[in-house]
Amino acid sequence: MAKYLNLFPASLEKLKLSLKVQTESVSVETKGFADIIDITQPIVDITSKSDLNDGTVTVFIPGSTAGITTIEYEPGAVEDLQKAIDRLAPINLHYAHDARWGDGNGFSHVRAALMGASITIPFNNKNLLLGTWQQIVLCDFDNRPRSRNVLIQLMGV
Amino acid sequence: MAKYLNLFPASLEKLKLSLKVQTESVSVETKGFADIIDITQPIVDITSKSDLNDGTVTVFIPGSTAGITTIEYEPGAVEDLQKAIDRLAPINLHYAHDARWGDGNGFSHVRAALMGASITIPFNNKNLLLGTWQQIVLCDFDNRPRSRNVLIQLMGV
Amino acid sequence: MAKYLNLFPASLEKLKLSLKVQTESVSVETKGFADIIDITQPIVDITSKSDLNDGTVTVFIPGSTAGITTIEYEPGAVEDLQKAIDRLAPINLHYAHDARWGDGNGFSHVRAALMGASITIPFNNKNLLLGTWQQIVLCDFDNRPRSRNVLIQLMGV
Repeated sequence: MAKYLNLFPASLEKLKLSLKVQTESVSVETKGFADIIDITQPIVDITSKSDLNDGTVTVFIPGSTAGITTIEYEPGAVEDLQKAIDRLAPINLHYAHDARWGDGNGFSHVRAALMGASITIPFNNKNLLLGTWQQIVLCDFDNRPRSRNVLIQLMGV
Repeated sequence: MAKYLNLFPASLEKLKLSLKVQTESVSVETKGFADIIDITQPIVDITSKSDLNDGTVTVFIPGSTAGITTIEYEPGAVEDLQKAIDRLAPINLHYAHDARWGDGNGFSHVRAALMGASITIPFNNKNLLLGTWQQIVLCDFDNRPRSRNVLIQLMGV
Repeated sequence: MAKYLNLFPASLEKLKLSLKVQTESVSVETKGFADIIDITQPIVDITSKSDLNDGTVTVFIPGSTAGITTIEYEPGAVEDLQKAIDRLAPINLHYAHDARWGDGNGFSHVRAALMGASITIPFNNKNLLLGTWQQIVLCDFDNRPRSRNVLIQLMGV
């Protein structure tokens, strides 16, 4: 009988290991106006310290005036991306959102909707499978400083 | 012996609970021409009524002339996004797709490819972790009314 | 006693089936300069041959000068997308990245950040739930030929 008593807890243990979902957040203080902030390190840390080995990290920004993407995080490429975003949805156009709500961040909503709020990145042996020069960035498009909580959800085994 | 008989079904029960994948769809009638439609409520309902507690919702639009994103769903911001999309891929340019296929929706394909077909959103305790003013939208870029089935896939525990 | 010995391995077997994560890659040789390459078939093959039935495929490109999206893969629509990307981040602008690093691919970084590096697609009964005319594409924005490894991660049951 002892044999079954020993095996059984092992089965339950593996059961618990079969899938894990871990939801974390990373707090970021931003300046707004297309402030582009490297959030790679905390996401690498959460992944390497978790008890998941393989799976995906979903990075999601709650809110309608910010976006998530990846870029080589060096000042030149960051400035180039900011300029492209300015061309895409210039600040000085007329925005219907501003005419209705008066908060002056119509351009922020358009930029956020075009960039997108989520990215999903695989990890393997607790290593995020990013390229060598590829960083995960929060782009805050609002027209004022904001405190943001970026959601980091790991799912896997 | 009864002890093991009782425990064993419990183990299998937990086993089945260890991961769930639930695939649903939401039917939407659109007008095309950058029709932007709020699909948040059915996705919130599916998530809250499912037997998953924590995980991700993948929202995916099958088809090459529509996209998925998030925005503050009020008429001003929606109009501003439509205008930005018009600047990105104007209707009245020459499109090689139209020259080949004659269906006149070359601009629709370009807009859809730039916006992207999927978004992934975490949920926790059956609550979608959206921002307060952040809605999930289907953007139908085709040049005619369409019946769309947006796929909603929940994965988690 | 034999009853338990028989049941127990069955339990462990189901345990292993409860979630699978499978990480693969697809090698692609590109020409750079917005080379848009259809990678649907290898992803369909990996999904149909895997031992997962239902779940998501995450397609992710490591690197900061390429992106992933979907489009109807025919030469006209591909050319139209390339032209739209040229308007978004023209090659002949001044890029701060180039002034700093001299590798001349500032436009590539901007294009990649705007398109995004990942897409997530549901599958059901080993079938990728793409639209009939919707293909998954790697867009290589670099300014030279590249060897790319696109990551394909399946997660599900």
